[in-house]
Amino acid sequence: MINVGVIGYGYWGPNLVRNFADLPNAEVVAVSDLQLSRLESVHRRYPGTRITADYREIIRDPTVDAVIIATPVSTHFEIAREALSSGKHVLCEKPLTHTIPQADTLINLARQHNLTLMVDHTFVYTGAVRKIKQLLSEGTIGRLLYFDSTRINLGLFQHDVNVIWDLAVHDFAIMDYLLDAQPIAVAASGAAHVAGQPESLAYVTCWFEGGLMAHFSVNWLAPVKIRRTIIGGDTKMIVYDDLETSEKVRVYDKGINLISNPDDIYNMLISYRIGDMYAPSIDPTEALHVEATHFVDCIERGQAPLTDGHAGRRVVRTLCAAAASLAESGRPIELSAD
Amino acid sequence: MINVGVIGYGYWGPNLVRNFADLPNAEVVAVSDLQLSRLESVHRRYPGTRITADYREIIRDPTVDAVIIATPVSTHFEIAREALSSGKHVLCEKPLTHTIPQADTLINLARQHNLTLMVDHTFVYTGAVRKIKQLLSEGTIGRLLYFDSTRINLGLFQHDVNVIWDLAVHDFAIMDYLLDAQPIAVAASGAAHVAGQPESLAYVTCWFEGGLMAHFSVNWLAPVKIRRTIIGGDTKMIVYDDLETSEKVRVYDKGINLISNPDDIYNMLISYRIGDMYAPSIDPTEALHVEATHFVDCIERGQAPLTDGHAGRRVVRTLCAAAASLAESGRPIELSAD
Amino acid sequence: MINVGVIGYGYWGPNLVRNFADLPNAEVVAVSDLQLSRLESVHRRYPGTRITADYREIIRDPTVDAVIIATPVSTHFEIAREALSSGKHVLCEKPLTHTIPQADTLINLARQHNLTLMVDHTFVYTGAVRKIKQLLSEGTIGRLLYFDSTRINLGLFQHDVNVIWDLAVHDFAIMDYLLDAQPIAVAASGAAHVAGQPESLAYVTCWFEGGLMAHFSVNWLAPVKIRRTIIGGDTKMIVYDDLETSEKVRVYDKGINLISNPDDIYNMLISYRIGDMYAPSIDPTEALHVEATHFVDCIERGQAPLTDGHAGRRVVRTLCAAAASLAESGRPIELSAD
Amino acid sequence: MINVGVIGYGYWGPNLVRNFADLPNAEVVAVSDLQLSRLESVHRRYPGTRITADYREIIRDPTVDAVIIATPVSTHFEIAREALSSGKHVLCEKPLTHTIPQADTLINLARQHNLTLMVDHTFVYTGAVRKIKQLLSEGTIGRLLYFDSTRINLGLFQHDVNVIWDLAVHDFAIMDYLLDAQPIAVAASGAAHVAGQPESLAYVTCWFEGGLMAHFSVNWLAPVKIRRTIIGGDTKMIVYDDLETSEKVRVYDKGINLISNPDDIYNMLISYRIGDMYAPSIDPTEALHVEATHFVDCIERGQAPLTDGHAGRRVVRTLCAAAASLAESGRPIELSAD
Repeated sequence: MINVGVIGYGYWGPNLVRNFADLPNAEVVAVSDLQLSRLESVHRRYPGTRITADYREIIRDPTVDAVIIATPVSTHFEIAREALSSGKHVLCEKPLTHTIPQADTLINLARQHNLTLMVDHTFVYTGAVRKIKQLLSEGTIGRLLYFDSTRINLGLFQHDVNVIWDLAVHDFAIMDYLLDAQPIAVAASGAAHVAGQPESLAYVTCWFEGGLMAHFSVNWLAPVKIRRTIIGGDTKMIVYDDLETSEKVRVYDKGINLISNPDDIYNMLISYRIGDMYAPSIDPTEALHVEATHFVDCIERGQAPLTDGHAGRRVVRTLCAAAASLAESGRPIELSAD
Repeated sequence: MINVGVIGYGYWGPNLVRNFADLPNAEVVAVSDLQLSRLESVHRRYPGTRITADYREIIRDPTVDAVIIATPVSTHFEIAREALSSGKHVLCEKPLTHTIPQADTLINLARQHNLTLMVDHTFVYTGAVRKIKQLLSEGTIGRLLYFDSTRINLGLFQHDVNVIWDLAVHDFAIMDYLLDAQPIAVAASGAAHVAGQPESLAYVTCWFEGGLMAHFSVNWLAPVKIRRTIIGGDTKMIVYDDLETSEKVRVYDKGINLISNPDDIYNMLISYRIGDMYAPSIDPTEALHVEATHFVDCIERGQAPLTDGHAGRRVVRTLCAAAASLAESGRPIELSAD
Repeated sequence: MINVGVIGYGYWGPNLVRNFADLPNAEVVAVSDLQLSRLESVHRRYPGTRITADYREIIRDPTVDAVIIATPVSTHFEIAREALSSGKHVLCEKPLTHTIPQADTLINLARQHNLTLMVDHTFVYTGAVRKIKQLLSEGTIGRLLYFDSTRINLGLFQHDVNVIWDLAVHDFAIMDYLLDAQPIAVAASGAAHVAGQPESLAYVTCWFEGGLMAHFSVNWLAPVKIRRTIIGGDTKMIVYDDLETSEKVRVYDKGINLISNPDDIYNMLISYRIGDMYAPSIDPTEALHVEATHFVDCIERGQAPLTDGHAGRRVVRTLCAAAASLAESGRPIELSAD
Repeated sequence: MINVGVIGYGYWGPNLVRNFADLPNAEVVAVSDLQLSRLESVHRRYPGTRITADYREIIRDPTVDAVIIATPVSTHFEIAREALSSGKHVLCEKPLTHTIPQADTLINLARQHNLTLMVDHTFVYTGAVRKIKQLLSEGTIGRLLYFDSTRINLGLFQHDVNVIWDLAVHDFAIMDYLLDAQPIAVAASGAAHVAGQPESLAYVTCWFEGGLMAHFSVNWLAPVKIRRTIIGGDTKMIVYDDLETSEKVRVYDKGINLISNPDDIYNMLISYRIGDMYAPSIDPTEALHVEATHFVDCIERGQAPLTDGHAGRRVVRTLCAAAASLAESGRPIELSAD
């Protein structure tokens, strides 16, 4: 039985608490938040769970095995550092930290204390993304040509992070899981539509070795909700639409054929190919349930999670490169291997 | 009665011929194309129309009042120059030319000879785009915040132009018509997925005075067809989906409210606003019919067309800036006022 | 504070418990179910709530003010009768009973004991259906011409009721709320696709005074999920699509114009009318929350609920007529006013 | 070379003329219509085609091999009878006739004169319907359980036929082609929403030997356009949506599993099965082109067309049964084998 303490009960905290409470081998023993009304809500639903306004009570609590951090991004590093230093396993909301050195510090702390450090890259645990990973691993779509994601809607304005850190972070985490490669350059442009607030619309481009391009469109001020990723391969193409209730993942046998025609190179070089489409059935299990189970398993077995500190760090690296490009009006930023 | 000669009977030519043939005050007297089979097709459908493999026969024909140019982009300038020099009114496929000086030459020729020079920016003549123009003119959506367009599908690979010149040109023409402003900087990134061929995927960003951003995603290698433009304003937002059979244009009363709250500036500054959506009825007349009628009217009345040489030149200007950025790996290119 | 006991914790029970638990002026003091595993689930989530396998413990409990019945249809009457006889207010799942006399008995019991009897016609409490009611009340769509509903998907086979009692009951409840009229005849056809099981597919037609027709298509064996109701009026028409995340209700200014043309009566009598469409914003509050609040309010104020025993009885009346027609291979069954 | 005369140039005639004009082995030598403006339109588009207001000129013309009848339903029989009697092959718009005896007369005339009699059941020649036929023939979906079609939109009011004869006729023709069985009973209900006009909304149910049910919903007064047929089988299910630009036919590996569980027959009898979905690629050739080619082939080879007089008669038989039921307020009409 893993005793869990949850720090932060805002937008996402209730989902974390509910999923960990449902696990047979975990118990949510304590929840902290700065807002009294939220703690009262915890108390109504989970009378057996201790509540506190001081997260350090949770970190100091010797009965707590693992700490889940669902607080604003700016506080992740400090709370995670304290928790790891106090011998707690940590599951931290994405993005893990604001900077790469911070991520390195947490990774090192976890290794030194032999603790599990996991980042809540939730989408990695959805049936849809796991199915796409399987398709890519099996070579279904051939060589990757592009990765194109749109994640827009009328979103909650964040005051401490811009739309890239809030929305594109999901796509960077999905891309990190699906591709076995890291970007070598990143460019980002954006606009802040409310004076004095962070960017509410942004476009990010990533370049990879071998010509693969990834592009991300994120927007807090869109009238319609779109959650769609297109992954183009040279034999097939995948469309992942997270808003579809069924058929979230579609595999299209569409593309082009290159024809070597010595007589008419100019016109016959390229022809269409339109074959069948299929939509594999997707495991409908709630991602957070899969993830919570995985976290507890990793703690119990001492294994590295799928979305460990290194995955968290890689996502932070892309975020920081995008931030640097944004600050330079869209100039592409090169990333060295590290 | 305006006698029309059509040069080029490939993909678009048949539509041009059909629409001009349907006009009561125009007659398609001649069609030229380099491929014999296409000319035979003209003859089957329009036995009364002369056919020729030599476009100069049309240009020299004294009974021809106006020439319509539907040939590859690289030939537009030369044919249009000859036609205007021979005293023919010209309707030319988009983009008008490959360079700004070429466009200037054509504009000057038309002015000198007192001829109508019009560019076939077809979408400008659709009921949907004309309705959006009306909505913007009436101030329906308030101050413009962004213009975001996606135009992707499994497209015909062009050998002489890349996907920006083939697809984004439509969006640049729509944007030119809808906005009363020209971009001050343009950036473009793209990838060529077939060796030795032009870029088949590209992203273009335009910046305007006052913070307005426009973004264009174009792709010849997409498994699904998308034709969607979102125009965000600070009071309302428009979604234009050209693939919708009805409700192509939707106006969303969605956005944010800024609240001046001296007590809690941090949290209360921004709140959502979700009101009604409405989809105005759209004139279903075929755009090319509207456009053909307009061309003949402009000739007869000596008026400047909506999409005259200057509009064609502005679109070429944006295309050239995008090409320059593409050649510099996405570096934003600044445009001086001219 | 109203103390609530919930009988039945199967598919719908958890939603009822959650919503009543969230009310400030109600408390879920006890839950009963025949399956031990379900009761354990209650205990995990609501440690302060008593659990029992014997629903009569709840009915006899003097601290319980109101009983919520979420058991199979065949048990509704008996449990509701006992609860009302024991002085408990009752909120019962739909359909209220299997027969009209049973419904009459419950209505009379509630009146005699001065208790609130409410039926869980959930959809009546959705923002979408309430908005449609408002539109109809305001005369937005003119005279009603037809009511056409499709409710199909791969559904849970019920063993005690057929697809009409399981799915069409929702539509009958919505229709009862929206229309100020009762059917004068009902016909139903259906098929049982699993031997020995109830009908899994059915079509129901209702006729009203004045020519209004209603039609219902319900199916447990459909590969796609559809939840769509079209309400045709002689000036406008409404499409209610419950699967839309936004724009669930759309009002179309479409229809026909009748033209009196003495010269050409034959051809000019009818012309199309295609105007704007609009989608009013819909209150997104969870229907069960609205309903739970309404139930507690009605108890506290002694008012008749929107979906009282009479509404429940009217829905049972239509269900029984459909069942009678089904048994006679689709022969229309006339209903006398009562 | 088959010389074709087309009688009737209203809504559908232009499509027929265009497709036959495009055939290499057919020529449209004459077109007749009662409206002068339509004939002028023919002349503009096809200057080489003779035009006449008197269809008998076409029937008497010795150079005409085949007559295509695209006139109102009420005239089909007379014109077809005259044409066949004059030794012309006939392609007739659907429905073939108003009555079964009329259809019999035409079938006999064609046989006596050794002429091709074909009915324009256009949808039978679409790539989508031909693909479904192939899937059914290969046993892809197992035993057929139901056939459910919705064909609604804001339609052109017909003055001489009701919505069943105008819209459901398409579905009856598709069903006739796809199923190897004829209905044993038919019921139809409907409503006329304009006084003095035919029914503008109707529901038709067909029963077959073995329990198969078919249902048709047709409506001229719907605010949205729907063209969707669901064909349920006991192993897979097909959804045919004619409005989809791609993926018109989808095959769902969804259904139920029957489990023989001696320990818990009640609860375990039925479980869901949700597998992959796939959308086979569909031949995009225009149906009328396939059909025109087939008609000319059948004439040249002396073969019976896919949609011959017997197919036309079977569709008329179902239409007449629906009309009889409609006249008796929805009473099911039994059909004897014939």
